Amino acid sequence: MYQRKRRLKVEAYVDGVLNGDKIILSKAITLVESTLESDHLIAEQVIEKILPHTGNSVRIGITGVPGVGKSTFIESFGKLVTSFNNKLAVLAIDPSSQRSKGSILGDKTRMSNLAIDPLAYIRPSAAGSSLGGVSTKTRETMLLCEAAGYNVIFIETVGVGQSETTVKGMVDFFLLLMLAGAGDELQGIKKGIMEMADAIAITKADGDNKAKCQRAQREYKNALHLFPPSENGWYPNVLTCSAIDNHGLMAIWEEIEKYSKEMKKNNFFFSNRQFQNVEWMHDIILYSLKQKFYSNKKIANSIITLEKDIKNKKIPAISAARNLLKEYQQT
Amino acid sequence: MYQRKRRLKVEAYVDGVLNGDKIILSKAITLVESTLESDHLIAEQVIEKILPHTGNSVRIGITGVPGVGKSTFIESFGKLVTSFNNKLAVLAIDPSSQRSKGSILGDKTRMSNLAIDPLAYIRPSAAGSSLGGVSTKTRETMLLCEAAGYNVIFIETVGVGQSETTVKGMVDFFLLLMLAGAGDELQGIKKGIMEMADAIAITKADGDNKAKCQRAQREYKNALHLFPPSENGWYPNVLTCSAIDNHGLMAIWEEIEKYSKEMKKNNFFFSNRQFQNVEWMHDIILYSLKQKFYSNKKIANSIITLEKDIKNKKIPAISAARNLLKEYQQT
Repeated sequence: MYQRKRRLKVEAYVDGVLNGDKIILSKAITLVESTLESDHLIAEQVIEKILPHTGNSVRIGITGVPGVGKSTFIESFGKLVTSFNNKLAVLAIDPSSQRSKGSILGDKTRMSNLAIDPLAYIRPSAAGSSLGGVSTKTRETMLLCEAAGYNVIFIETVGVGQSETTVKGMVDFFLLLMLAGAGDELQGIKKGIMEMADAIAITKADGDNKAKCQRAQREYKNALHLFPPSENGWYPNVLTCSAIDNHGLMAIWEEIEKYSKEMKKNNFFFSNRQFQNVEWMHDIILYSLKQKFYSNKKIANSIITLEKDIKNKKIPAISAARNLLKEYQQT
Repeated sequence: MYQRKRRLKVEAYVDGVLNGDKIILSKAITLVESTLESDHLIAEQVIEKILPHTGNSVRIGITGVPGVGKSTFIESFGKLVTSFNNKLAVLAIDPSSQRSKGSILGDKTRMSNLAIDPLAYIRPSAAGSSLGGVSTKTRETMLLCEAAGYNVIFIETVGVGQSETTVKGMVDFFLLLMLAGAGDELQGIKKGIMEMADAIAITKADGDNKAKCQRAQREYKNALHLFPPSENGWYPNVLTCSAIDNHGLMAIWEEIEKYSKEMKKNNFFFSNRQFQNVEWMHDIILYSLKQKFYSNKKIANSIITLEKDIKNKKIPAISAARNLLKEYQQT
């Protein structure tokens, strides 16, 4: 059942967020996630006001297939991060999931230790989409968290779909969690995701599994070696870790710190963020143009027919497209 | 100097193409490549009429960085293909190049032996774009060639840019040509291209270079082994070849034939083509919506200002996008 929530004034959101008030922060995120047009307008004003206070964080994307031990990793790694007195926000992006499917951050009980850490803020993924889709919602949430003083942001994805590209476009560092297997280590990881990684961490490197993980580490290092460095000159490293033994987590954190330092030195860190922000604007525009077209009912009906005609070779794709565009102009 | 070409009637194009008349085929392709709206309308009717006679070919994308020996490979491989009495059309896709830059199919002298082969048809890449961009032009050219009886199509790209994804979306088989180097085999090949390959051929495996190529072959096989098979169940193979010794070319052709056979058996060949055609329609639509927006002069001016404001954190990307969309609606 939808229950209309009471909204605060713009200033109340802004002040609360800037004061690091977790309750107001949560309310502001709910506002951002709302599908109501009236909420969008308030949200936009809030975002505009907090904007000068954003950006002072390292944004880390974390992905991996279900079973890789993502929750356990994030909890242990997150505790390490807050132990250095960092304020950590853990967000999730998952365009496909309804809250009930909940493979990802469905509830805070997954990370019960981190959830009660006063330096950590965990925000479960919400279903539904807004202007610019899930990506926009998560970006705005990230900005709110930064304005609230969180200087380390984790953005978690499931690692099997399109959402990784979206996350890659909003983070500074992209960490891929992998399982050691027997020759089939990459099963389940979509092609291309490995290439986006700034580091790979092989999880569950403890007990009997340790040797297998080290073997996998060597194999991945060799494989990655074949790929050229990114435009920023960074060569992704492959590490092993165990959330149970707390082994390797520090090395991962040091890797991220090294990355930030080097990328700030060569200015990639900042130019990349500027680039991401401009890209974001274009993403929203494209998304909106597309959504407006495809949500047009007459168009939607025509598409069904035309797709069939294309498959049956009754009409070339170009004529079908032209017909649809003509029809759209007349609506 | 632009010279207005005399156009034929729709039926003349259709009959000429269906009769395999190379001169009419070339004229029809010129029509397709034209930027004149009046030509588009004729072209569309021609394509619609020849459509039932298309599809009876194997469409092969061939890519590789400059220096890999692409022209030499295509010439030798093409001669092999026509020696089995296949009719071969060689097309090029290269959104970036002007004819003068001509790294790709700039002229037929590059492949002089193939150019005089009566079973081969070589079409140099033309500059300029049309509705749906270069991709649409190349797709239509491919359909015309098929209607003219060409049962093997090569689509060549330069292997350094975005065009590979476009080509992947219009071919049945994607062949990546690679050079054997010293650990840096992938330098110059954009990340992600290797993963699109249905086969990799290491070129120039002759003389002193042979051992190096075999070593590279083993390395690539190991690297590819780490990746999961495509949804169609195909594992890409790594082969070596020499256009000078004519070594390995037959094995590549057999690989493509094996692929076609298996993919026809499991129906992927056909379902993939249906999918590609429907995708093509959506590509054209998206391209047109985008082009219409960005070619709007008022919008173009506003974008320049807003991009600056975003970079200077004066305005959030979402507000900038919203402003632009509002402005666009009012034009």
